Amino acid sequence: MPLVRFDIVEGRSKLEIGTLLDAAHRALVAAFDIPARDRYQIVQEHAASHLRAEDTGLDIERTDRIVFISVTTRPRGDAAKLKFYREVCRELQESCGIAASDVIISMTTNTDADWSFGRGRAQFMTGELR
Amino acid sequence: MPLVRFDIVEGRSKLEIGTLLDAAHRALVAAFDIPARDRYQIVQEHAASHLRAEDTGLDIERTDRIVFISVTTRPRGDAAKLKFYREVCRELQESCGIAASDVIISMTTNTDADWSFGRGRAQFMTGELR
Amino acid sequence: MPLVRFDIVEGRSKLEIGTLLDAAHRALVAAFDIPARDRYQIVQEHAASHLRAEDTGLDIERTDRIVFISVTTRPRGDAAKLKFYREVCRELQESCGIAASDVIISMTTNTDADWSFGRGRAQFMTGELR
Repeated sequence: MPLVRFDIVEGRSKLEIGTLLDAAHRALVAAFDIPARDRYQIVQEHAASHLRAEDTGLDIERTDRIVFISVTTRPRGDAAKLKFYREVCRELQESCGIAASDVIISMTTNTDADWSFGRGRAQFMTGELR
Repeated sequence: MPLVRFDIVEGRSKLEIGTLLDAAHRALVAAFDIPARDRYQIVQEHAASHLRAEDTGLDIERTDRIVFISVTTRPRGDAAKLKFYREVCRELQESCGIAASDVIISMTTNTDADWSFGRGRAQFMTGELR
Repeated sequence: MPLVRFDIVEGRSKLEIGTLLDAAHRALVAAFDIPARDRYQIVQEHAASHLRAEDTGLDIERTDRIVFISVTTRPRGDAAKLKFYREVCRELQESCGIAASDVIISMTTNTDADWSFGRGRAQFMTGELR
């Protein structure tokens, strides 16, 4: 169920974007222990001028390969979140050559009643999903 | 006050998109019992490759008419949320021919101090809105 | 660390957009008392038809210069939020000629574990940031 938004700089091929989405989803499945088909992703390309990322003084260098990942999810423990940060960076490095210094992630938490996956039903409330 | 983001596949006419936004707003007004002019909508079109929706094992078939709806709202009861899921699917089916199997919704909750509708004021804090 | 999304009507120059982002960031730094390099901004341009803002009965007139600002942040006090609303309207008016009646803001709160600024690390958990 996590809904994941990716904001990236324009210029990648469809194939590259598909590889990126696949890699990020593998990381999410591994970290959150969700079903493989629990995949909801939106990717938006931007002019480089439209994505601004500095470093909060952490001395992290950014490039045009930067990826903002915004996750909306039911509650997850800290360990699962930390594992996702590590795993998604590893996957994006290995599969897409994206440096971990270019991966910025934020998460927002909601609850069971906040999801409908189709058919006008709230599947975590009906018991169709747990 | 809900802020509603729609992510859809590109290719609809402006008229079709306007019809979709009107239909979704009617559902929100009915479900959340908000004023008719409490309307804040952002719609983003995407290449089909940039929206990925599987089904979490629910056996739901998706098409290129898929609509992701992301709602940010002050706290709402479960009944209001469930009514919105039903109503928005009914409205989108009737007005736009979008199947309920193509409607994916997530909600995020915030609070009174988290909204400013203009003029640099937080209208739920000043008492201009309740 | 706040992540700030801007949704605006298309047609501004890159220079104008840069000025807008700079102005909004100054307001955030002043209101939230964050480091100057704590800057994470995404701006998305839309056709005017794709942004709908009415006024919840507040009698606020909107124009094509409308700006939706969506902030994701760790917890902030009400005073800091109210200061941001005032400051960002002042900055956008002074630097960009955007009327306060065209600035719509919503905030969403998350927590320390919900952020990774790069390197696969959660810098508020590791102690690299506070």
